[in-house]
Amino acid sequence: MSETKQIPYKIYLEENEMPKQWYNMRADMKNKPAPLLNPATLEPMTFDDLRPVFCDELIRQELDETTAYFDIPQEIQDFYKMYRPSPLVRAYCLEKALDTPAKIYYKFEGNNTSGSHKLNSAIAQAYYAKEQGLKGVTTETGAGQWGTALSMACAYLGLDCKVFMVKCSYEQKPFRREVMRTYGASVTPSPSMDTEVGKKILAEHPGTTGSLGCAISEAVEVATTNEGYRYVLGSVLNQVLLHQSVIGLEAKSAMDKYGIKPDIIIGCAGGGSNLGGLISPFMGEKLRGEADYRIIAVEPASCPSFTRGKYAYDFCDTGMICPLAKMYTLGSGFIPSANHAGGLRFHGMSTTLSQLYDDKLMEAVAVEQTSVFEAATQFARIEGILPAPESSHAIRVAIDEALKCKETGEEKTILFGLTGTGYFDLYAYQAYNDGTMSDYIPTDEDLEPGFASLPKVDK
Amino acid sequence: MSETKQIPYKIYLEENEMPKQWYNMRADMKNKPAPLLNPATLEPMTFDDLRPVFCDELIRQELDETTAYFDIPQEIQDFYKMYRPSPLVRAYCLEKALDTPAKIYYKFEGNNTSGSHKLNSAIAQAYYAKEQGLKGVTTETGAGQWGTALSMACAYLGLDCKVFMVKCSYEQKPFRREVMRTYGASVTPSPSMDTEVGKKILAEHPGTTGSLGCAISEAVEVATTNEGYRYVLGSVLNQVLLHQSVIGLEAKSAMDKYGIKPDIIIGCAGGGSNLGGLISPFMGEKLRGEADYRIIAVEPASCPSFTRGKYAYDFCDTGMICPLAKMYTLGSGFIPSANHAGGLRFHGMSTTLSQLYDDKLMEAVAVEQTSVFEAATQFARIEGILPAPESSHAIRVAIDEALKCKETGEEKTILFGLTGTGYFDLYAYQAYNDGTMSDYIPTDEDLEPGFASLPKVDK
Repeated sequence: MSETKQIPYKIYLEENEMPKQWYNMRADMKNKPAPLLNPATLEPMTFDDLRPVFCDELIRQELDETTAYFDIPQEIQDFYKMYRPSPLVRAYCLEKALDTPAKIYYKFEGNNTSGSHKLNSAIAQAYYAKEQGLKGVTTETGAGQWGTALSMACAYLGLDCKVFMVKCSYEQKPFRREVMRTYGASVTPSPSMDTEVGKKILAEHPGTTGSLGCAISEAVEVATTNEGYRYVLGSVLNQVLLHQSVIGLEAKSAMDKYGIKPDIIIGCAGGGSNLGGLISPFMGEKLRGEADYRIIAVEPASCPSFTRGKYAYDFCDTGMICPLAKMYTLGSGFIPSANHAGGLRFHGMSTTLSQLYDDKLMEAVAVEQTSVFEAATQFARIEGILPAPESSHAIRVAIDEALKCKETGEEKTILFGLTGTGYFDLYAYQAYNDGTMSDYIPTDEDLEPGFASLPKVDK
Repeated sequence: MSETKQIPYKIYLEENEMPKQWYNMRADMKNKPAPLLNPATLEPMTFDDLRPVFCDELIRQELDETTAYFDIPQEIQDFYKMYRPSPLVRAYCLEKALDTPAKIYYKFEGNNTSGSHKLNSAIAQAYYAKEQGLKGVTTETGAGQWGTALSMACAYLGLDCKVFMVKCSYEQKPFRREVMRTYGASVTPSPSMDTEVGKKILAEHPGTTGSLGCAISEAVEVATTNEGYRYVLGSVLNQVLLHQSVIGLEAKSAMDKYGIKPDIIIGCAGGGSNLGGLISPFMGEKLRGEADYRIIAVEPASCPSFTRGKYAYDFCDTGMICPLAKMYTLGSGFIPSANHAGGLRFHGMSTTLSQLYDDKLMEAVAVEQTSVFEAATQFARIEGILPAPESSHAIRVAIDEALKCKETGEEKTILFGLTGTGYFDLYAYQAYNDGTMSDYIPTDEDLEPGFASLPKVDK
């Protein structure tokens, strides 16, 4: 492996170099993530407990802490070939503009119609639902990327797809809704009168524009009360991180091909799907003591689960019908401010990433919205890609780290995840362009109601 | 070259296989396209006539009928590397869904933030403007793809960019406008009170929502009356087809690599930028008698320049300040109906393609809007890409040709141009999803005012 080999602007793996297995980080973790608990008994959720909600194979993946590699079924591999491999991009232009000795790479997951990495897990979850002979799946979507991805996967496989879309997103992002409809999904603004939990929430908060936690509750209810349906989720869960490992596996293969080793790996973190996927094989090496990497999770200052949350058991949804998960959380009662990175507004975090963070195997940093859009605009103009607000959190910190290298003269290699494009986030860009965008950092008092909502669990 | 070599889903050229020269079809044409005429003298436009409007090097390219290959400057090659090579995709899933023996390929130009192939010429035109030491460029945009592409190119090179956007698009596509603003362009709805021609048009037609021809007039006026500015155009011109030849050159190299020879080449045609680029090297072989291909231009039935237009000298703009071009045209006085493929609503057509069509070296077919969106939706669900309305015209005919192969059992190889994505066209998809989309085919009487507006030129 020659270090002088010319690195192209974009490294694409050949089809035969694409991953044929997903990697399960938990297999190499000494401290496993805490198990999901049954909210009624506070005992660990069993396969049978989860069967009414999730597809069987996905439950197996969810609960499996020891199998390091799972074969990717051929049909999913074939679907991946329609939009993968995603390019690993060397940000030559950004490096030049920043005048930094750092070498910057990003794994770009936005080159598909869902506009993000979400499709990697959507096709897997839809595939297992179809294999089980189900009629369809239900889900929630906030920013709309997950709902779009799932509707695409379901259209491809001929499955029904019912999406509960957070009402404020439904109204602010009519185009997202139309993409899902074009892919044949039904899209319902949440909270709705279609579910008991929706009716209850609307009775208690008549004017509410919804939340992700509330939409989850509705989607779970519909899945469990309709024959032939199951619920699927685009983030947080271990199964999602497993599927998303394809991002990191591809990135690592592409880097290995050119003898590149990253010093710093950066990803935005909402529920953890992208970050968990991107870091998987690198964290695997770190866990096995084969290599070391500095890994940074970036979250919005307005919804700072890692940096200001508590590591505790909590509900994933507002209706409190989902299992309890031990995670860094602001409490299911925390109402995040209406920032422009809908995908990062979840109160909790992946249990796996939470354990890794608690074990100090990764860092976290919170960044403010206007500085994120400053980085987004700079990146768009220099690298030619209009990034999603979520992804731009990682760009912000990647630029900051590259500028530190400029100060110190260090030639560090930085890898970050560019999870998606911002084509459906132009109200946010408009606010930034018009100078009307504001920042919001919750005070300690603002966080109290969320923490007060945490269930009392001595585990 | 083994015919049994496994064809991947997506063929990407290596960076060192990317074209280093553009190809100029005119060099191989026996019948050259008719020259642009000075509207005052009706004499062929000279280099000096064009200097107030266009950059010097671009005029040279525009007027050069003999040089077959032009070197692509290194800085443009570097910019191309940020989003090219674009993939040549084997539509395995579409073939399977259609149950056709045809082999379908598409060259996908939508994987960049402008959402289309327009960036290929935008960076070239901006580059030559910068080389000439200009401050900035002016242009018009209809659907918004060209304006977005130009604003991206200008942001990269640090040039000012003034875009006149057809007023109805400006209002219907605020997100397109915001992308351009994010890239630092100024965007003015046209007709505006900023120009003399805009004031005149508004005085004559107070309620008008504008047209491409009108926005061209305004952009040209601003370029010619401001020191250090020139006008640039995203289609129709020979220079644009030259730059866009990168599409066809890449497609042909990718096919040659796997020993694939297309039987049919299909592209949508508005002003001809995409089609002219895609077919370039193939048409070159055809013109030199080295190979034969069936080449099909697809246009909307609502704006049928090729299939129902006249081959005559005409104005390119409403204000009649641009040179006269001999082309298939509906007349600059033709007002196309408000269909959803804004990029295909120009009354005229590339002079080069017009000559090739007149020489029967290519065919043309007009298709109706709802059948186009039927094909678009089918394609989106099967191939996972949400296509632009313009591109979907080519999809419609590619599917039709593949279905003919199913009838006859012929294993034809079809190549079509997928020029862009439909993320900013979701009002159109919504109309289709809601069942409110209609078709419009102008009657012969509807075409009369346009033909009556043709200037009297005996050439």
